[in-house]
Amino acid sequence: MNTLIRNCNLISMAEGREKYEPGVDILIVDGKIAEIGARLEAGDAEVIDAGGKICMPGFINTHTHVAMSIFRETLDGYTLQDWLTKKIWPMEDKLTAEDIYTASLLSFVEMASTGTVMANDQYFMPDSSIKAALEVGVRFMATRTVFDVSNNADEMLAQQEEMIKNYKNKYDTIYPNVGIHGLYTTGKETVEKAVALAKKYDVPVHVHFCENSQEVIDIKNNYGVESPVEVLKESFAGVHTILAHVVKVSDAEIEELSKLDVAVAHNPISNMRLGCGVAKIQKMVDAGINVSLGTDGQGSGSNLDMFDTMKFAALLQKGVYENVSAMDSYEVLKLATINGAKALGVDTEIGSIEEGKAADLILVDLETDVCQPVGNVFSDLVYNAKGTNVKMTMVNGKVVMKDGEVPGIDKKALYKKCDDIIKRIS
Amino acid sequence: MNTLIRNCNLISMAEGREKYEPGVDILIVDGKIAEIGARLEAGDAEVIDAGGKICMPGFINTHTHVAMSIFRETLDGYTLQDWLTKKIWPMEDKLTAEDIYTASLLSFVEMASTGTVMANDQYFMPDSSIKAALEVGVRFMATRTVFDVSNNADEMLAQQEEMIKNYKNKYDTIYPNVGIHGLYTTGKETVEKAVALAKKYDVPVHVHFCENSQEVIDIKNNYGVESPVEVLKESFAGVHTILAHVVKVSDAEIEELSKLDVAVAHNPISNMRLGCGVAKIQKMVDAGINVSLGTDGQGSGSNLDMFDTMKFAALLQKGVYENVSAMDSYEVLKLATINGAKALGVDTEIGSIEEGKAADLILVDLETDVCQPVGNVFSDLVYNAKGTNVKMTMVNGKVVMKDGEVPGIDKKALYKKCDDIIKRIS
Repeated sequence: MNTLIRNCNLISMAEGREKYEPGVDILIVDGKIAEIGARLEAGDAEVIDAGGKICMPGFINTHTHVAMSIFRETLDGYTLQDWLTKKIWPMEDKLTAEDIYTASLLSFVEMASTGTVMANDQYFMPDSSIKAALEVGVRFMATRTVFDVSNNADEMLAQQEEMIKNYKNKYDTIYPNVGIHGLYTTGKETVEKAVALAKKYDVPVHVHFCENSQEVIDIKNNYGVESPVEVLKESFAGVHTILAHVVKVSDAEIEELSKLDVAVAHNPISNMRLGCGVAKIQKMVDAGINVSLGTDGQGSGSNLDMFDTMKFAALLQKGVYENVSAMDSYEVLKLATINGAKALGVDTEIGSIEEGKAADLILVDLETDVCQPVGNVFSDLVYNAKGTNVKMTMVNGKVVMKDGEVPGIDKKALYKKCDDIIKRIS
Repeated sequence: MNTLIRNCNLISMAEGREKYEPGVDILIVDGKIAEIGARLEAGDAEVIDAGGKICMPGFINTHTHVAMSIFRETLDGYTLQDWLTKKIWPMEDKLTAEDIYTASLLSFVEMASTGTVMANDQYFMPDSSIKAALEVGVRFMATRTVFDVSNNADEMLAQQEEMIKNYKNKYDTIYPNVGIHGLYTTGKETVEKAVALAKKYDVPVHVHFCENSQEVIDIKNNYGVESPVEVLKESFAGVHTILAHVVKVSDAEIEELSKLDVAVAHNPISNMRLGCGVAKIQKMVDAGINVSLGTDGQGSGSNLDMFDTMKFAALLQKGVYENVSAMDSYEVLKLATINGAKALGVDTEIGSIEEGKAADLILVDLETDVCQPVGNVFSDLVYNAKGTNVKMTMVNGKVVMKDGEVPGIDKKALYKKCDDIIKRIS
């Protein structure tokens, strides 16, 4: 089915098109953007009247744990270590595949409802999360995370390979990658086996990296290195790696990172909530590193609304580093869209609105109390809009959310099911 | 008219009542909370069915410039000094009393819509802003700010006194105070005349204080002091003073401030946006200082949604100071409600829901994508809810917003009027 989006105000995010374009029509044929222009012919396409709403690329959330939706707001009153060992891990032991499907479904509903079209995940039982992603229609980069805690890394690696074989090129919207939990939990041998898998199947690697000070100490001790970056150089050579967090790195390490095939997934809200510190992303951007945005799981990140994450990404750089010129609003929109697509290696498909790319886009209504008058549309999106301003989310030309409704999903029933799970396993 | 709020989940914020109370009814008689209990008799009261929504005190925004709504998102690309001198001040020179009324009306509509029941302001032409406050019904602490830039401080002081005489005890919801712009813009003589006015009429003083590093240097130079706190000790003795910002103070100065009759209005979003730094509010709370929350004007604070401000207040203390235990969620709710009432000297009237106080309260719906499941209701309010979750705002027993509508206000027409003003004066 073809669609014509009539009369939107376009923010394309394409290179060379860094502007706001009022009164634009977008013709979508077979899920792809066929034409962008003024007063296009609808032909047999279904017409969506945008009524002057903003049309922009959907957000790409480059670090999530989608099944952790049910752990939302369980953190207060705990230290990180106590929260994990006394609260989360005992609960995770009780999770069934069905629970993981249901909890993941809540996350994909949350994403579709707040304008996110793709997420990059780390968890276990990926089949369950993939089933939920397919049901909602949001793009999903999934993994079967490996680590060295329980002495069964080879079994995990076998599951990881099986999962990649099962899903690579099977669905338009599902992308397998290789997940390594972290260098403080995974030794060199397992890391190198995982990296070899990524090379064999030509998929990226996704790893937590330098999230807090203790982790850096642990990596140095475990690997006998002066800097965690040395491990990337030695054991991750030849694969594209998505580094989640990257809070505790020096300026010299940022310089070294800029020479590697790595992308940084910045998770400002989770980093704040866990007391980790503020990643120096303006410095990373200046060094030429591709920085994108993630929410982390709801346990530490609270929710998946990328507008909140954009606001924190912008304001922390300005405020903490006392630099009013840091992170201009258009740059922040790039972090949340095209940079995310580059991080996940899908920028030929999505991340900007241009002819030939898939129609992964959102309609945003700025006619609300906190957004008016609109002094600058880019800033208004970063500082005032929220997920509730998104009125339509489209993935691959298919509407996955319209006016708050996700087709096929009874939201209130889903909330109840998730509440039942957390009550059962608490 | 009397009202019965039926079946809410109460967060009273009263001392000794630091809990979540499901299934509560609240009877409101003549604008005051007459009874809180289970299954109360409605009698002749109008019944509002809360349907299990949260009922909590409305927010108190202790630092605003309500007429600056029209400057929302005009800051990007400027330094603070250039923004003020090249953009804001030339525009302010063109503002008419009618413009200030219209722009203020937008702010009061924004407040009512997002759950704020009272604001403490600093601007000029207070009659225009007061007219707008009365129209919407939000409580308003107004002033005619004095400073020493244009050599007409005595004229400003006369206007200030006139304004206090006009409004003190005239309306239930309007409170005059004495506004002093800042110690870097106002000399000792004018400050002491202003403080004398505050004493004469028994109203508080409201002043910008130590917002950024340059300001501190200027105060030290202008007053010949080692610390700006010395000026407070000498020239502000005997009045209650609301200090806006207080970013650039040492631990020793925090200790000194704790001995004075001052309250701190913390504006985390504006402080970040202007590159000022992060106020040490956890330290201030620990030192016994009454800390409350403000948004600042929309020019630097972007919007008046106190949920955004709570989230920043919480996360900055945890993240920047790498202390996961800082600012627990209930404490943050106190900052936004009862502490604000104490700061403005209205805590016998509002700030908590208890028998005898005015019915200044909000109903919050947490049945939304980003809030479910509710692991902890206090945390869910601080980290996930937004102004759009507020379904009803009541001031003095009168509904000032219900389901997004503000009685008597055509929102879209108001947005248009504000847009016309900013276009005309730009």
